[in-house]
Amino acid sequence: MKTLAVVGLGYVGLGLAFELSKTYKVIGYDISKKRINELRDNYDKNLLLSKQDLLKSKIQYTDSLKDIEVANFYIVTVSTPAYYYQLPNLKPLINATKDLATVLKKGDVVVFESTVYPGTTEEICLPLLEEISKLKVGVDFNIGYSPERVNPNDTVHTLKNVPKIISAQNNETLNKVREVYQSCCDNVYPVSNIKTAEAVKILENTQRDINIAFMNEFAEIMHALKLNVHEIIEAAKTKWSFLPFKPGFVGGHCISIDPVYLSFKAERLGANHNLIDTARKVNNNCTQFVARELSKMMINTQTSLQNSTIGIFGITYKENIPDIRNSLALKLIKELKIANYDCIVNDPFANKEVVKKKYGIELIDFDELNNLSAAIIVVGHEYYAKMGYDNFVRKLGNHKIIMDIPNLFIDHYNDHAGVNYWCL
Amino acid sequence: MKTLAVVGLGYVGLGLAFELSKTYKVIGYDISKKRINELRDNYDKNLLLSKQDLLKSKIQYTDSLKDIEVANFYIVTVSTPAYYYQLPNLKPLINATKDLATVLKKGDVVVFESTVYPGTTEEICLPLLEEISKLKVGVDFNIGYSPERVNPNDTVHTLKNVPKIISAQNNETLNKVREVYQSCCDNVYPVSNIKTAEAVKILENTQRDINIAFMNEFAEIMHALKLNVHEIIEAAKTKWSFLPFKPGFVGGHCISIDPVYLSFKAERLGANHNLIDTARKVNNNCTQFVARELSKMMINTQTSLQNSTIGIFGITYKENIPDIRNSLALKLIKELKIANYDCIVNDPFANKEVVKKKYGIELIDFDELNNLSAAIIVVGHEYYAKMGYDNFVRKLGNHKIIMDIPNLFIDHYNDHAGVNYWCL
Repeated sequence: MKTLAVVGLGYVGLGLAFELSKTYKVIGYDISKKRINELRDNYDKNLLLSKQDLLKSKIQYTDSLKDIEVANFYIVTVSTPAYYYQLPNLKPLINATKDLATVLKKGDVVVFESTVYPGTTEEICLPLLEEISKLKVGVDFNIGYSPERVNPNDTVHTLKNVPKIISAQNNETLNKVREVYQSCCDNVYPVSNIKTAEAVKILENTQRDINIAFMNEFAEIMHALKLNVHEIIEAAKTKWSFLPFKPGFVGGHCISIDPVYLSFKAERLGANHNLIDTARKVNNNCTQFVARELSKMMINTQTSLQNSTIGIFGITYKENIPDIRNSLALKLIKELKIANYDCIVNDPFANKEVVKKKYGIELIDFDELNNLSAAIIVVGHEYYAKMGYDNFVRKLGNHKIIMDIPNLFIDHYNDHAGVNYWCL
Repeated sequence: MKTLAVVGLGYVGLGLAFELSKTYKVIGYDISKKRINELRDNYDKNLLLSKQDLLKSKIQYTDSLKDIEVANFYIVTVSTPAYYYQLPNLKPLINATKDLATVLKKGDVVVFESTVYPGTTEEICLPLLEEISKLKVGVDFNIGYSPERVNPNDTVHTLKNVPKIISAQNNETLNKVREVYQSCCDNVYPVSNIKTAEAVKILENTQRDINIAFMNEFAEIMHALKLNVHEIIEAAKTKWSFLPFKPGFVGGHCISIDPVYLSFKAERLGANHNLIDTARKVNNNCTQFVARELSKMMINTQTSLQNSTIGIFGITYKENIPDIRNSLALKLIKELKIANYDCIVNDPFANKEVVKKKYGIELIDFDELNNLSAAIIVVGHEYYAKMGYDNFVRKLGNHKIIMDIPNLFIDHYNDHAGVNYWCL
């Protein structure tokens, strides 16, 4: 019987360990003592698994490498972030690989799930494993790659029902990898080699980034034409081939990061990557567009910039989750501050202490944001939808400016009853 | 009872006139005497309508402006090409509008269908109509806009079953426009104003251009990695959100042109259009990529460049039609010639005389292309599929190089039995 160790208990690792532990003995390893203690207390700060879920699970949590030595099948699910949105940051992956190498034994299988550019697993991780363990791949141990396809907060597309791409160095290992994933995925989909599996994931996410970038660029042009971009999108949807993307902020640890990895590799191969880079820039510059439009509205409504207070509603990278990684809300707040706007910020999901400590931003309760010169709804939390449009209007002073980036109250777009409503 | 005149009998105009003539008296006007004579002989050189279709139709064809004076509802369907792929060429539209203005009368309605950037109809066409006719819009005559959504050679998505976006200057005119289009379209979809309708069409086609551009850029990166891009795309398709675009040549009078119009307008508005432009460049540069890869294969197989002959199969912009407008095949041939390759060209659909006269290219019969140093299949005509892979291999001399841009024989991708097979 296999003993599995999942290395890295973030969004991906914890969910995977949870499902695998229904069939296998699973050890969940993370370098964060805090995370391990919380999980031992059956608390997932990402709110993906409930206390009830965690109480049922038999995962053995540890932050001690020694404890995973008993495993013979390792799955690495650490995050692969980027430096300043620009360059791959492989440090967490490299560190996890180095640590893992110290416990690697003959007969082990190591599968990587972290999203990386094609070649990372074999060109960066594998040499580290061999060098540190003094074991030989293909002889003493084997590796595989299976891209995670987790969509946080999506209950329709799950680990179980989304086909799982798998790959390995050789057929024997592929069969072992298949066996493990078949225990929790309805369909596994083997591809020819590890690089191909790496490429699949990065293709998917980069495509999404580019499509949203186009909608953001298109929205900017339509705003310049004073046209309602959402009416145009709705009409375009009546064509069979139209893809109903919407303009919006792209943040988080997947869509805003993965294209950076692909672009990095392309540059080193001497292949073109202009489109990927341009799309990234368009999506990142979206905050500047919003800041510019805010200034226009302030000027048009003769709102004084002195003593003006801008209410920012939502700071996470996505609705209804507490994750603030690479959130464009943070970038927007920074840019508004540089432009001398005074921002006060609310978010019902984000952790007040973390946000204060990491970004120096004080989160204020919803009821305490009042007399605002303008309200910018940045994240479409259901909480805000429930609060309702009127509750936002009431928070505004003389000049009723509402900027609605997630288009939460888009039905009020043409309702100009004293309110200057703008949506992306 | 309305009398309709359709101005411009290309792909869009003829098909529309044909359907409308089932309900209305329709006069079909075109400036080309040759086209009018052919249509009177029930011959459509674009092969969209058969002789039988045309024999049934009651369209009255004319190249004389005087003949359309009796109409009271005009639909303009002239083409809106681009200069050198870079700038909108509104000449055909402007000329048609000027001509139309000379026959405009009180009570007339003019609907434009030509794809344009938002604002063209009201800022360019309308002033010409008023100035030349001395009539006043909204008082003497009215205008509307309804984007054509014709997909040549698509029998699934037709004028009848694809919703028809309509718009007009005022509600009264919109009702008239609706009535006319309802006679041949199952669904009409009115939008708020003319600019919005113009924007819908340009959004749809630019989105497609950008998605194919990304696949072309991605394919180039995957080729540099020596990975099979098609295996990657097939695997990515197993994710619910993936959009199964493919790399390929983008030519023709829609996808390769419409983004140029949008970009042109954005520039004049001071709005960003980098992504649109970058995508255009990626798609246009696709021929250079193919030429480079050909050289690589020639060098790798030690094929002499002296006395080498490259067979080009397909010169149209799309499969199974004779249309060569903005075909990237022409650009590829030009680039190969500059690189000193000797090209011989076959196309079972394109008109030999037109191609000779317009581009100086002699089309050779399929059977006569032999002893080729390399075969480049550019267009996926069914004719080539039927000829079969072996028939292409037989045409090759010592060094069996087949480049397959439409991936017609992709199943042979890994079949390296003496053949160097490359697909985009």
